[in-house]
Amino acid sequence: MHRIPVGVLGASGYAGRELCALVARHPRLELSFATANEQRGQRARLGGADVRFIAHDDAPLADAQLVFSAVPHGASATWVERVRAAGPRVVDLSSDLRPGHGAGAIPYGLTEVARDQLHDASVVANPGCYATAILMALLPLAKRGLIAPGSTITATAASGVTGAGLTPRTDLLFGEVAEDFRAYAVGNTHRHLTEMRSVLDGNGADADLIFTPHLLPVARGILATITVQVTDRLADPLAPWQDEFGAEPFVEIDGEPPTLRDVVRRNVVRISAHHAAGVRQPTLIVLSAIDNLVKGAAGQAVQNANVVLGLDEPAGLPL
Amino acid sequence: MHRIPVGVLGASGYAGRELCALVARHPRLELSFATANEQRGQRARLGGADVRFIAHDDAPLADAQLVFSAVPHGASATWVERVRAAGPRVVDLSSDLRPGHGAGAIPYGLTEVARDQLHDASVVANPGCYATAILMALLPLAKRGLIAPGSTITATAASGVTGAGLTPRTDLLFGEVAEDFRAYAVGNTHRHLTEMRSVLDGNGADADLIFTPHLLPVARGILATITVQVTDRLADPLAPWQDEFGAEPFVEIDGEPPTLRDVVRRNVVRISAHHAAGVRQPTLIVLSAIDNLVKGAAGQAVQNANVVLGLDEPAGLPL
Amino acid sequence: MHRIPVGVLGASGYAGRELCALVARHPRLELSFATANEQRGQRARLGGADVRFIAHDDAPLADAQLVFSAVPHGASATWVERVRAAGPRVVDLSSDLRPGHGAGAIPYGLTEVARDQLHDASVVANPGCYATAILMALLPLAKRGLIAPGSTITATAASGVTGAGLTPRTDLLFGEVAEDFRAYAVGNTHRHLTEMRSVLDGNGADADLIFTPHLLPVARGILATITVQVTDRLADPLAPWQDEFGAEPFVEIDGEPPTLRDVVRRNVVRISAHHAAGVRQPTLIVLSAIDNLVKGAAGQAVQNANVVLGLDEPAGLPL
Amino acid sequence: MHRIPVGVLGASGYAGRELCALVARHPRLELSFATANEQRGQRARLGGADVRFIAHDDAPLADAQLVFSAVPHGASATWVERVRAAGPRVVDLSSDLRPGHGAGAIPYGLTEVARDQLHDASVVANPGCYATAILMALLPLAKRGLIAPGSTITATAASGVTGAGLTPRTDLLFGEVAEDFRAYAVGNTHRHLTEMRSVLDGNGADADLIFTPHLLPVARGILATITVQVTDRLADPLAPWQDEFGAEPFVEIDGEPPTLRDVVRRNVVRISAHHAAGVRQPTLIVLSAIDNLVKGAAGQAVQNANVVLGLDEPAGLPL
Repeated sequence: MHRIPVGVLGASGYAGRELCALVARHPRLELSFATANEQRGQRARLGGADVRFIAHDDAPLADAQLVFSAVPHGASATWVERVRAAGPRVVDLSSDLRPGHGAGAIPYGLTEVARDQLHDASVVANPGCYATAILMALLPLAKRGLIAPGSTITATAASGVTGAGLTPRTDLLFGEVAEDFRAYAVGNTHRHLTEMRSVLDGNGADADLIFTPHLLPVARGILATITVQVTDRLADPLAPWQDEFGAEPFVEIDGEPPTLRDVVRRNVVRISAHHAAGVRQPTLIVLSAIDNLVKGAAGQAVQNANVVLGLDEPAGLPL
Repeated sequence: MHRIPVGVLGASGYAGRELCALVARHPRLELSFATANEQRGQRARLGGADVRFIAHDDAPLADAQLVFSAVPHGASATWVERVRAAGPRVVDLSSDLRPGHGAGAIPYGLTEVARDQLHDASVVANPGCYATAILMALLPLAKRGLIAPGSTITATAASGVTGAGLTPRTDLLFGEVAEDFRAYAVGNTHRHLTEMRSVLDGNGADADLIFTPHLLPVARGILATITVQVTDRLADPLAPWQDEFGAEPFVEIDGEPPTLRDVVRRNVVRISAHHAAGVRQPTLIVLSAIDNLVKGAAGQAVQNANVVLGLDEPAGLPL
Repeated sequence: MHRIPVGVLGASGYAGRELCALVARHPRLELSFATANEQRGQRARLGGADVRFIAHDDAPLADAQLVFSAVPHGASATWVERVRAAGPRVVDLSSDLRPGHGAGAIPYGLTEVARDQLHDASVVANPGCYATAILMALLPLAKRGLIAPGSTITATAASGVTGAGLTPRTDLLFGEVAEDFRAYAVGNTHRHLTEMRSVLDGNGADADLIFTPHLLPVARGILATITVQVTDRLADPLAPWQDEFGAEPFVEIDGEPPTLRDVVRRNVVRISAHHAAGVRQPTLIVLSAIDNLVKGAAGQAVQNANVVLGLDEPAGLPL
Repeated sequence: MHRIPVGVLGASGYAGRELCALVARHPRLELSFATANEQRGQRARLGGADVRFIAHDDAPLADAQLVFSAVPHGASATWVERVRAAGPRVVDLSSDLRPGHGAGAIPYGLTEVARDQLHDASVVANPGCYATAILMALLPLAKRGLIAPGSTITATAASGVTGAGLTPRTDLLFGEVAEDFRAYAVGNTHRHLTEMRSVLDGNGADADLIFTPHLLPVARGILATITVQVTDRLADPLAPWQDEFGAEPFVEIDGEPPTLRDVVRRNVVRISAHHAAGVRQPTLIVLSAIDNLVKGAAGQAVQNANVVLGLDEPAGLPL
């Protein structure tokens, strides 16, 4: 069967490498080019394939039917325009075009939620990793009007270090991260809050969100622990997610709290929900786990590309 | 100078070994006996000293002036009685005699808070590790009436695996814990909640508490991330802790979020507090870090013993 | 296409679980039964399949065409007999029937070396993990008479903790293994030495072997570092392995030293060889890396089963 | 008691920070200055003291009685000259002045071996971390003529990542090092070989040395595993070390193999020796463990400084 050529801009980082690996194993896609300015000319073994990085400016953009942009935030919007001018459709992994960042009309690719808007999309804004974990946990409540109006949602989350990218920083060295655990962007200042709030507001939630991310001494994975007051005590705390996502192959709903090991190297979000005992307001504790590089980045990007290109949505994605 | 003989009941676990090590390096204490039923007859090198474990029943209780009980929850209350009958005073590291567990008159040894009740105490209930981290973070607010009445406090915390003890469990093997992260006791069901709620209530807090603990792939340390609505936006978010603990040698208050590395192997609790941006209710995010085996167990136990015995409070404690 | 029923005896350990997972994803095999005495009645999610453990004695042995035995050393030989009596062929992952253990006629399943003896085998002794790494590194030299007669080969190797099995031992807890590294069986006393020496002798090596294993703070993987004096300085140090294994899909030969990351979760052995500079005797340093649970256990077992059953040798094996 | 002023050149790396911390806790030394060009003006909390880094060129060299140079290899020799011209004595942690690097007359500070040459030394070359572990293991054999003439010694060693320094390199990121293990400088090409060979030759060893270092996923510690043929089978394999180092406070000799945990954060080298079974030549397997930043760098540097300055040798060193 004919394979569809796709390109990867910014292929040398963790997300870019994961994209190349997924494309290499994808039954219907083939890698047209992979760019990386600093690593230009270098080769890497990704997904069993031998990939050679070229400079961004040397990318034969028009050869691809779709391009994944994994260049840094800030630089990506310009590249999306260049790619569109050359023809291909784009899945943009940066935050440049996400909700709340001023680019109104671009679909936000939480695939399970936005699928209908993706079929004809020329550009898809791929969600952030924290936003994927947290929004998949909260949207079923928001869409059903179950979040207590005026309440405050607390989301703490912990991410493996690949979430910070493949960048030479002394604070990310093994000798600094091992045996440590730390919060960052404390004070509700993380840049992904904009997209989370914007999507929650757009889905009817009238609640504040306080988000505190943490850095875990693991390579991959995000676990979000969310406390949310609900309008009523649900008979089955899992019901909203089962209603919303029960038929989704990439969403796992379970009574047991998910762990990173359940999701690592898989394109799934795994969710549990639990009544909080001993409190006056009916409250749910919702746990949500993803692999930050798969369902939180490259995997969901390929899932979105599959929809955009009219392929089988699960094609090439690790379950 | 004459050294005061102390004993350790239950000396082979993580807390018991840490106790023996602290006693070995203590300028005024000496180890009278160390018990461990299963390891009886075995020797261990602890704090530079050669310690030989004897059976609990063989302990010459009356030889000690003070006994640390680190036997398991449930079994400890009986041992406290036996020790008292033999004469020595007791610092009990189990939860048996802590607030909310029915033993009303026994002082709860958050040393900085309860110091005045400890001087004449014959028994001290040493706080749990999570409780130490969370109560030291919340009591300054509670005592000043700053916690919004009727609100819900959210405390998520992550602990290194030594918190689960030196027990042969397959789920605590390196191969199972490495590269993982998981919540447990989800649904507000952790057994330390009783003592936390009891102490908060006793200090004037009219708020619910939702506590979700997590297991970290590190050996030592607890980081608690607490979101709490306050009655007013404080000019200086650190002020309540500086007022309460500013002169304490074992409490560090800082504008930067504490990390595990800041506190590991030290008898300190390190606290930061931050205004939450973008929310309607004035809210603080309070971070609190301890070494679960030191300030969260053996270190605080020695700190309490120092007060009980009339020694210098910081004697023998690693700063 | 019809799937061939296979069973797994001793399915709850690391190797047994890996076997079940490989069978679940195998295009031509299906799991007939999985036994685990202590976990009987429990379920596990392995390779995307839902596996229910039954007691060893309840296994419908005759339903399978081939049985993998992953019961402990010592108990396995008896089970091999029981399975054979019921009909199926056996791949035995224990050391009971390996060379040097007294069971002369049973083929030793280093697949790439023993392939011809496996086609008609009713029982295959699957090699140990350390033996796989070390023998694949040394046999090309031994078979070509390149090992200096009378010399001493030094093999140090380091293994991830899954090599010690899924057993509740306090010395394998995360809190004990993290940030540590240790040698064991020091003094050339490891029980896998028997099979290594026996195979080396059988392939013409006239050299002593000193083997020192180490425990690594990682979950999976073995790296062996072997120093071996050779009869002559080779023009190309990789030549013996390229001659022997150049066409093998599961052997990777490279000028760069292999790392655990290169091989983890893959059914490969990756080998490099390097001249030692600054020494009087021509000497090679040979590095060999495998995943102890895949090429070092379950993967090679499936590879052997594929040969025994006349299937495509790489069927169902992760590359 | 009067404290002796000492300075640290290159104080912002791992060894430099450890030096500052040791000086802060030292009963007889005080920190006169700490330099770090890139971090000039920054502050760090080291050993409980508040240290402010100044530029190298701003160091008031003459204020110190002794200067530790922890600037990079290559740059250090020049700084040693500048310091000497200003007056203070120097302990140089770089390899610039070590044996085999051309600077004949400078004592090589394996303290236990070279103590007598240090009392009047104006400059001491502090040994490398691998060299410390390996030479302390081999010198007792060499000095007694026990190493088989013409034989080959095999030393493999594994080091925690702090051995590579506090440098922003992507290959040292947590996400790259965790769950990995790799050899480097394979082929007997490590730059510390020069000093090891030179010292062994100088102590009568007539043997080749093959050294293969590895990178461990731990922060601190080196374990060396050494296989060495001896002239005769010793009745007690520990005897040479007990004879040589039996009275040394910083050398621990034991029948059990040392592990990293035994030595981390301590200024000791811990050594065991074992007969190799099943080989024709009498052979010892010697294990040697140190903390690469303490006995392998800053701790031994302070030990040497203590000798040079006529202080108690163990002063300020963690046992």
